[in-house]
Amino acid sequence: MSIEFNAEQQSLFESLLMARRDVRGNHFLRDEPVTDDELQRILEAAIWAPSVGFSQPWKFVVIRNTHTKDKIAQSFKEENEKAAHLFDERQREYQQLKLEGIHESPINIAVYYQSPQKPVLGQTSMQEMGEYSVVCAVQNMWLMARAMNIGMGWVSILNANSVNQALNTPADHKLVAYLCIGKVDKFLERPELEDLKWEKRKSLEESLMQESF
Amino acid sequence: MSIEFNAEQQSLFESLLMARRDVRGNHFLRDEPVTDDELQRILEAAIWAPSVGFSQPWKFVVIRNTHTKDKIAQSFKEENEKAAHLFDERQREYQQLKLEGIHESPINIAVYYQSPQKPVLGQTSMQEMGEYSVVCAVQNMWLMARAMNIGMGWVSILNANSVNQALNTPADHKLVAYLCIGKVDKFLERPELEDLKWEKRKSLEESLMQESF
Repeated sequence: MSIEFNAEQQSLFESLLMARRDVRGNHFLRDEPVTDDELQRILEAAIWAPSVGFSQPWKFVVIRNTHTKDKIAQSFKEENEKAAHLFDERQREYQQLKLEGIHESPINIAVYYQSPQKPVLGQTSMQEMGEYSVVCAVQNMWLMARAMNIGMGWVSILNANSVNQALNTPADHKLVAYLCIGKVDKFLERPELEDLKWEKRKSLEESLMQESF
Repeated sequence: MSIEFNAEQQSLFESLLMARRDVRGNHFLRDEPVTDDELQRILEAAIWAPSVGFSQPWKFVVIRNTHTKDKIAQSFKEENEKAAHLFDERQREYQQLKLEGIHESPINIAVYYQSPQKPVLGQTSMQEMGEYSVVCAVQNMWLMARAMNIGMGWVSILNANSVNQALNTPADHKLVAYLCIGKVDKFLERPELEDLKWEKRKSLEESLMQESF
């Protein structure tokens, strides 16, 4: 028998989707640890994700070491300085944003995709499916962390080669996500970039088509 | 004030993650419609996903037209025949698998990533972040559908160019996912490929490292 979820549970799940936020350094509680059991539960949620051909191509590197975090933070700093120049008249506004929480969060997790050594069912026409499976695992972690009232932020302003060097990553692995995880003072009501009017929220209608473009 | 979820709600959410399945044609109930309200709710779940720089780069094309589905199914057939040859001694086993539900499901959704016309915050170092945002939206849809006891399958054995041709897709859009959505007779207890021993389930330990590779 399959589990059936009821209307109340459906609404609860919707409220979880809506309450999930990308958390940056200004909201992490640096001195409140995430317990091993809590971390385990977030990682278990990851591996319940769908994966193409049941290939489960994910690898997780848990990082707490300050020296390693220093190297990652240095890559962020370099990439972020380069990035700021791309935003022309918004450069100052860009530079005032806090876009990572590498040191402020007790736990960082680098999430990798490992390329397969043999053909994977379902991945023969669209090679990206392997990476996409890993992204599904990241989204599961994000939602599970939020359900546990734990914050997670995805840092993407990084040079993947620098991260790989810091972590001694084998050549057949690709960095998909670099995550910061920790307790928070609060979750923002809306995404920060929405509040700051960096971008405006799109309605569903703007993104929806019937039958074809 | 941020919403706080309690222990019971956390367990419920875990049971949702575990109950989600990739649904293929042999489990869809072809004649049971998905209502407009149900479809709307699944799509609303998509746009609560995280997106890099709040760029919301997703586009959804809802397909019910049999003629369009025929073209997609033809692409599946061609790609699947090519794929079977890659599995050597498991070719027969591969050919017996039902790997799509294009016609059996009442609703198909092609999910696209639209490339940005200006730099996107957070996407300047890792270009893939835009596509990854769209994948997060797909995982939200999958979980929301399952919460509503509605099945979803992700068909990846497709030629993206053929799908684009069938849907008149603009050049700046990339196909991320092709989804089949419908009511089901049941959800399998375990992934079919696990039951058939196509691949074995990995433990978390196999995929987990501390501090570095």
